[in-house]
Amino acid sequence: MLSTTPRTVLNRSKQRARTDRADLHAVLDAGMICHLGVLVDGAPMVIPTGYGRIGETLYLHGSTGASSLRGALASQVCVTVTHLDGIVLARSAFHHSVNYRSAMIYGPAREVEDPGERLDGLRAITEQLAPGQWDVVRPPSRKELAATTVLALSLEEASVKVRQGPPVDDEEDYDLPVWAGVRPLLVSWGAPEPDPRLAPGIPVPAHLSHTP
Amino acid sequence: MLSTTPRTVLNRSKQRARTDRADLHAVLDAGMICHLGVLVDGAPMVIPTGYGRIGETLYLHGSTGASSLRGALASQVCVTVTHLDGIVLARSAFHHSVNYRSAMIYGPAREVEDPGERLDGLRAITEQLAPGQWDVVRPPSRKELAATTVLALSLEEASVKVRQGPPVDDEEDYDLPVWAGVRPLLVSWGAPEPDPRLAPGIPVPAHLSHTP
Repeated sequence: MLSTTPRTVLNRSKQRARTDRADLHAVLDAGMICHLGVLVDGAPMVIPTGYGRIGETLYLHGSTGASSLRGALASQVCVTVTHLDGIVLARSAFHHSVNYRSAMIYGPAREVEDPGERLDGLRAITEQLAPGQWDVVRPPSRKELAATTVLALSLEEASVKVRQGPPVDDEEDYDLPVWAGVRPLLVSWGAPEPDPRLAPGIPVPAHLSHTP
Repeated sequence: MLSTTPRTVLNRSKQRARTDRADLHAVLDAGMICHLGVLVDGAPMVIPTGYGRIGETLYLHGSTGASSLRGALASQVCVTVTHLDGIVLARSAFHHSVNYRSAMIYGPAREVEDPGERLDGLRAITEQLAPGQWDVVRPPSRKELAATTVLALSLEEASVKVRQGPPVDDEEDYDLPVWAGVRPLLVSWGAPEPDPRLAPGIPVPAHLSHTP
């Protein structure tokens, strides 16, 4: 079960809340980027960035010089992962909505210092984008590692919201002669585009050919 | 041209910065949801939500009771819109990246009080999800309007980042026998799913049948 804190308990649309850790993991595992909220000079900044999950820990990374990562370490952070699954078309403007799955994770971020955990975190971030990729590419050099900050965020305090299904209109609006329903949004892979500098004779590996 | 302020000038990957207002408009107009960063009890909160643009103003909305909107009015906000266009597969773990278009807008949010501007903002938010929809659905009632807060955010302070194209590897890595290139991510509409309660004989209107 997800923990309940004032900021993880929904005040509205309570029926959208999911409270199983498995739901949180599913939303995170299905994503490729998150939106990281940090404080910089007292104001919120929302940065799209990669992430990876190992158990109950989320890993983020960035350049050692990034002000956003300094902000992340100096205050609480909020990481949000959102999947937009469809547009919900109601008979009234007011009841328009979207179908989505989203997770919000709150907490202090921890700078990862242990070399083993740093590598594990970076591996998880790369594998989130392209599972199977880490073992076939050149691993990070000492210099590259020195230029990279790795952050860890516990999944302890988190909320998950899911909306699915048709619109919910006011009862008296169901008779209106207006089409209502859902337009699903689909995400798919296009054909891999080889680097123009790719050496001849290197095929696309199987782990980059599957469909999501 | 976009304005330059300390938080809109990129410190790294400067070649990804776009500085034309047309680039900002293009990123916003191509999106359907944003991630809104606000301060709630001194900590950042990142909320996925709809938006609409009219000229140089972004409109957001929510329930009058939402703590996130109270937070938005009590501090600066940051609105980020991100399109993930592909995964960039390099020969080294370090140079993995993503192709994307993103916009970040900063500023104080203003609560819209004028009834005409409120309706215009709500219309823009609905039309962002489904252009052509506003004129065919029941408009908001007085009661629905009273339950809705509309916020406006000037596009004055904003930054736009775009990454596209193949990976950029270290020169000595180009000889590695590793496939490199881009896996494009495509977003498309699925077939419209009629509300199970849809009255017979109402076809899907043309504005909900086009492909994006």
